Amino acid sequence: MKTTDPSLQSFVDVAADSPFPIQNLPYGAFTPAGDDSGDEAAHVGVRIGDHVLDLTVLTTGGAPAQAPSLRPELFRDGTLNALLAAGRPTWTAVRQDISQLLRHDEPALRDDDALRARVLVPVTDTIARLPVDIGDYTDFYSSKEHATNVGTMFRGKDNALMPNWSELPVAYHGRASSIVIDGTPVRRPSGQMLPEGAERPVFGPCRLLDIELEVGFFTGPGNALGRPIPVHEAHEHIFGLCLVNDWSARDIQKWEYQPLGPFNAKNFCTSISPWIVTLDALEPFRCAGPEQNPRPLPYLRDDEPWSFDIDLEVSLRSADMTESQAICRSNFKHLYWNIRQQLAHHTITGCNVRPGDMMASGTISAPDPEGYGSLLELTWRGTKPITLRSGKDGKDGQEDQQRSFLADGDTVTITGWAQGGAYRIGFGEVRGTIEPALALENVTDHAEQP
Amino acid sequence: MKTTDPSLQSFVDVAADSPFPIQNLPYGAFTPAGDDSGDEAAHVGVRIGDHVLDLTVLTTGGAPAQAPSLRPELFRDGTLNALLAAGRPTWTAVRQDISQLLRHDEPALRDDDALRARVLVPVTDTIARLPVDIGDYTDFYSSKEHATNVGTMFRGKDNALMPNWSELPVAYHGRASSIVIDGTPVRRPSGQMLPEGAERPVFGPCRLLDIELEVGFFTGPGNALGRPIPVHEAHEHIFGLCLVNDWSARDIQKWEYQPLGPFNAKNFCTSISPWIVTLDALEPFRCAGPEQNPRPLPYLRDDEPWSFDIDLEVSLRSADMTESQAICRSNFKHLYWNIRQQLAHHTITGCNVRPGDMMASGTISAPDPEGYGSLLELTWRGTKPITLRSGKDGKDGQEDQQRSFLADGDTVTITGWAQGGAYRIGFGEVRGTIEPALALENVTDHAEQP
Repeated sequence: MKTTDPSLQSFVDVAADSPFPIQNLPYGAFTPAGDDSGDEAAHVGVRIGDHVLDLTVLTTGGAPAQAPSLRPELFRDGTLNALLAAGRPTWTAVRQDISQLLRHDEPALRDDDALRARVLVPVTDTIARLPVDIGDYTDFYSSKEHATNVGTMFRGKDNALMPNWSELPVAYHGRASSIVIDGTPVRRPSGQMLPEGAERPVFGPCRLLDIELEVGFFTGPGNALGRPIPVHEAHEHIFGLCLVNDWSARDIQKWEYQPLGPFNAKNFCTSISPWIVTLDALEPFRCAGPEQNPRPLPYLRDDEPWSFDIDLEVSLRSADMTESQAICRSNFKHLYWNIRQQLAHHTITGCNVRPGDMMASGTISAPDPEGYGSLLELTWRGTKPITLRSGKDGKDGQEDQQRSFLADGDTVTITGWAQGGAYRIGFGEVRGTIEPALALENVTDHAEQP
Repeated sequence: MKTTDPSLQSFVDVAADSPFPIQNLPYGAFTPAGDDSGDEAAHVGVRIGDHVLDLTVLTTGGAPAQAPSLRPELFRDGTLNALLAAGRPTWTAVRQDISQLLRHDEPALRDDDALRARVLVPVTDTIARLPVDIGDYTDFYSSKEHATNVGTMFRGKDNALMPNWSELPVAYHGRASSIVIDGTPVRRPSGQMLPEGAERPVFGPCRLLDIELEVGFFTGPGNALGRPIPVHEAHEHIFGLCLVNDWSARDIQKWEYQPLGPFNAKNFCTSISPWIVTLDALEPFRCAGPEQNPRPLPYLRDDEPWSFDIDLEVSLRSADMTESQAICRSNFKHLYWNIRQQLAHHTITGCNVRPGDMMASGTISAPDPEGYGSLLELTWRGTKPITLRSGKDGKDGQEDQQRSFLADGDTVTITGWAQGGAYRIGFGEVRGTIEPALALENVTDHAEQP
């Protein structure tokens, strides 16, 4: 029976609308709730319903008899890097074994109360940690709608898309150190920007703080330096996907980005969702992407459908709202360049990819304005602010709030899911709340001395 | 006695013109010569003359009595990351203790034949390994001469420098995975480029393969996310420097770099020298950099001299030359933005820096044309080719060779040193030889299927 069989059920209680049925089984890392020190060693696990199957504990004494592929060394170090390095045959075997262990008619774990108590942890008793020790982080720019919108705003409609955009998946190297897990607060950055009409830049808190709705993938085992990965083999080096919010400081970006691309405007924080959804789980939702015209050069040609039908939603809640308000609905399938093309292009000059590298899609904007994946586009550079439904519980008379860019206290949540007939493969969510900028004297006091 | 005292001598034989006297003591990592498997665990050590003091072996049983700061855990894992994480007080203590152990009048190691035989390894018996497990790699663009030259070629003399260049140390995130150690062959990359006047790009081997003469620094302990490093504290997070050759594919770069910066053109290989020269060793060579006009914003203001007087030389040897020919002589002190300003700017929006991150200077071009740090500039886009002195040993009648960009079989070597009155603090060298591009069918065969 395939691990994606719609009729497959687990003995673990899973709500009918849960994003995490037995067909999903996404991977993550966690420490026990209550440990804020960060000293406790992380475990890796698989999410099912409202529980996490603790693979580190489960395999401490060796692989379970019913799951021989769960070798302890794959889960020992609290990250998924060893699993990512092991390659697709191992990924498939491990998924099959975990699915077997959790299915309704498999007694090994189901009927062992003591074992279940040790390895099936309520997710409320866990704190999510970064699931991967991320080596390099690359951010693509693969949404034609996004690139066209941004290009139109900055260079006018006739020059919106650069000539190279339709020929290759444009990308830049991002900053791996500042990738954080869902829920980590986001400090409003301060930096240089050039006020309209000014002769010289000023220093201060970013005023045009933005989001970018993205989806990332994690790589393994990767290629040797100098040996490109052919496009038709690229999926063998892609483990799974997660949600990404690539926070962006638009005013800092506008001043700094020429000629070498965004730097400070992007490197202060990138948030990811805790659960990595595998390509195996997403297989039923694989679909064709947009038609590619002009036809790509041979090394980028992919005649198989390697996009995915994944619904994406961004919502925002200001400090005095009680509920989040959806501000964007998009879908992963709108991306022009698919993940195989991205990886083939990344390695075409010989660049090596390692287990645990992360590559993000770039902002995923849908064709219609409700599906634009950044505030820059949603509010068209602030000219069409979003109106937020205001009102604290029990308070009346609150005025509606306008948003062009993010305010302190705003919480942004990205969610994503692939909807099947009988079940939903969910990504969970990635959230972040904006904290006020640091007081400026904290960073300039030394330099201000006479 | 200070570790940089010019009169200090070691009991280890050091030639008068050695780049590695006891005043230098640069750090590196190595495996035994003859082990090409890469399986042998690396050790870390300090170079002195033609020997390496093996710190991993020296501290296996605990810190030596005469060198209490040499805690085993600092040198155990075969990289310098633990030492980088330990911070400046440890760096200074460790350097002081190693200097003490190696000085002429300290008998502990000098008079212990058995210990000396185990821990003082001839450098010819070692293979250099990457000294650091590099987290993130950032490449600056801090030479005004280089930025002006490139800008003049691409945008004309009047628009050579972008308006932001004089206000902030422009940088981009590079690729850490493809950083390699001195001596690693460099495969000529293939990729997309747009031929002059063509409507669509073509795929093929890079024709404009170039070097970039750079110097990099390694960081530690670093800052927490969201907490910038003030400029006047930045040196506390900089361990030491090495030579960098940032190989560049100019034709690929020209086509791909807008709007997000260089990607494939740079991520195929970056070579570094094996020995990290500490800021402590370079202290006598600290000097003022160029005058900065306009005066930087307060967070970037550095009124202390934080450049270094380091001579740099690039030489080239084609496959049929017997000796390298110098093609560029420059100096680190020409850089407009210093390393403290670079690190302060890197973190100003809150980006965190970790132990083992590498940051390179960008191409270091001198004001005079003999000091340009790339072939792009040295040959002014190929319009003024370099003439190489030809002639294999014993062969006559060889014609002179012209070089606009690198040919297969060319070996490029970068060397660097700070020259004192009584001794020289050398960096050693970083070399790379160009290998022919892979046959194209290796990367496109799958995609060429009907």
